Amino acid sequence: MRILSGIQPSGTIHIGNYFGMIKKMIESQDDGELFAFIASYHAMTSLKDKEALENNIMEAAINFLALGMDPEKSTFWVQHDVKEVLELYWILSNHTSMGLLERAHSYKDKTAKGIQANHGLFSYPVLMAADILLYDSNIVPVGKDQIQHVEMTRDIATSFNNVYGEIFTMPEAKVDEVLQTVPGTDGAKMSKSYGNTIDMFGTAKKVKKQVMGIVTDSTPLEEAKDYISCNVYKLCELFMNQDELTQMQKRYATPGEGYGHFKLALLDKINDHFSPYSEKREYYLNHKDEVREILAHGANKARKIAQAKMEQIREVVGLNY
Amino acid sequence: MRILSGIQPSGTIHIGNYFGMIKKMIESQDDGELFAFIASYHAMTSLKDKEALENNIMEAAINFLALGMDPEKSTFWVQHDVKEVLELYWILSNHTSMGLLERAHSYKDKTAKGIQANHGLFSYPVLMAADILLYDSNIVPVGKDQIQHVEMTRDIATSFNNVYGEIFTMPEAKVDEVLQTVPGTDGAKMSKSYGNTIDMFGTAKKVKKQVMGIVTDSTPLEEAKDYISCNVYKLCELFMNQDELTQMQKRYATPGEGYGHFKLALLDKINDHFSPYSEKREYYLNHKDEVREILAHGANKARKIAQAKMEQIREVVGLNY
Repeated sequence: MRILSGIQPSGTIHIGNYFGMIKKMIESQDDGELFAFIASYHAMTSLKDKEALENNIMEAAINFLALGMDPEKSTFWVQHDVKEVLELYWILSNHTSMGLLERAHSYKDKTAKGIQANHGLFSYPVLMAADILLYDSNIVPVGKDQIQHVEMTRDIATSFNNVYGEIFTMPEAKVDEVLQTVPGTDGAKMSKSYGNTIDMFGTAKKVKKQVMGIVTDSTPLEEAKDYISCNVYKLCELFMNQDELTQMQKRYATPGEGYGHFKLALLDKINDHFSPYSEKREYYLNHKDEVREILAHGANKARKIAQAKMEQIREVVGLNY
Repeated sequence: MRILSGIQPSGTIHIGNYFGMIKKMIESQDDGELFAFIASYHAMTSLKDKEALENNIMEAAINFLALGMDPEKSTFWVQHDVKEVLELYWILSNHTSMGLLERAHSYKDKTAKGIQANHGLFSYPVLMAADILLYDSNIVPVGKDQIQHVEMTRDIATSFNNVYGEIFTMPEAKVDEVLQTVPGTDGAKMSKSYGNTIDMFGTAKKVKKQVMGIVTDSTPLEEAKDYISCNVYKLCELFMNQDELTQMQKRYATPGEGYGHFKLALLDKINDHFSPYSEKREYYLNHKDEVREILAHGANKARKIAQAKMEQIREVVGLNY
């Protein structure tokens, strides 16, 4: 079973990204054959800044390697290093009706938010279809907003298969219904756009500032506190085992400690949790050439499969004159 | 000065194509550096038939070589053999506003005629822009219906240059105002869709049938005939020198001959004119591997330029992480 995941190369990651998506992706390496790529071409639909694009690609690679992406077990590459995907994208374009693309929610949502309506953004779902179909992916784990794109991929694949025979494997979207929503420092869903994040690999000072800034009620030190509604406790649930949580509940119930103490306990656990990753990350940050080698190795693995698939496709469509 | 021409790989060619476009393209090899490619990717927007696409590509290559395309002097290749064009196409897509594409006449005209509105057809102008800009083309000879596409190319190039600096050369459309309109066998413009063509490389029998079918008036043998309004004479003008034409005028003025005689005179001239090309064409038809070698040689020449250009573009947009 082949699982395909695209990684958005978008700078800093926070614990909401981690528990929401990254952890699942890393763990899926045990469930099947993981194909994970850093979506550099997709990023270009909105990012028009050389330094930012380069840094984001490198940053994403380092973060995922630090967090447990295994480049031997899985296939891990940067999208634009396997150019075959663009030929498939062009071929599929000719089997994608304009009506299908015009119905895409995500394009409408993005332009409604004021993002520039360029052709790259509009045709994004066709490139995504090429990403998926090029590798005969079986499973595409996605958020709810991306289900439609996998459905469009199936439509495009069906339309192509109807003309040229059974070339493409039909992918299935896998939506994790029980996906953990990680609360931000203000209790709302943790999200960069809400400014309520706790960085995964921030400096000690920054992470401390973020944790100490978690919003709580104003119950005084000398009163017992309610852990159930507490944003600090909710975050503790991500990092503590049952014994530790029971211990925390007792501390909430016992007057004499304030939220500041609980926050420090959480901060310790966060630091403990991510420090092995931080060390690994530090290593890769200082060995970027090694990262480039790992990505080149991944691209070679991906390209072999992509080339074999494209050979088959070129033959059926008539490009071998 | 670099001249870029795309060749539509569309089966049989007729003398209207030849005098309307091909002859000019062949002659332009003396005016500048001709880059001529067989537009296989573009053809896919409407052609979804393996055999037809393969045959049309090979047919176009053979016809152009037979008619004088010089693969040493010029750069002559099949579009999909230089895949760099697709990466530029994707990059340019992100600098092409949807409004620009939606205003394209040619897309509207084609869909109005009932051609399926697929994404490839819609995005055709962006691929054409990539074709033009990848090779720093100065001049793009086009028909009137394609002027807008060259203007769009300039818009896209400007929008890219505004972000990343002076990367692209601004191309100029060159419209041949004095382009010869070749009359068909019924006097209307010669066109495959009117069924009034005379094939360039048809069998002797077929070409004779087409020439003998030219529409004339019914002036009897024993009367003088008017050459000025005669479709046969109009075609003679393409194939005869001044002396021969004066001779023809005399024959029209002298009773005793019928249109059948004039048609046979025309047929002789057509056969004389194309027989050297026919021989060369016959040779290539029997040496397709040689044709493939010539095209591979052309693709290598084009690719060197394309790769150097793409290196520059990848660097400025931030793909060299």
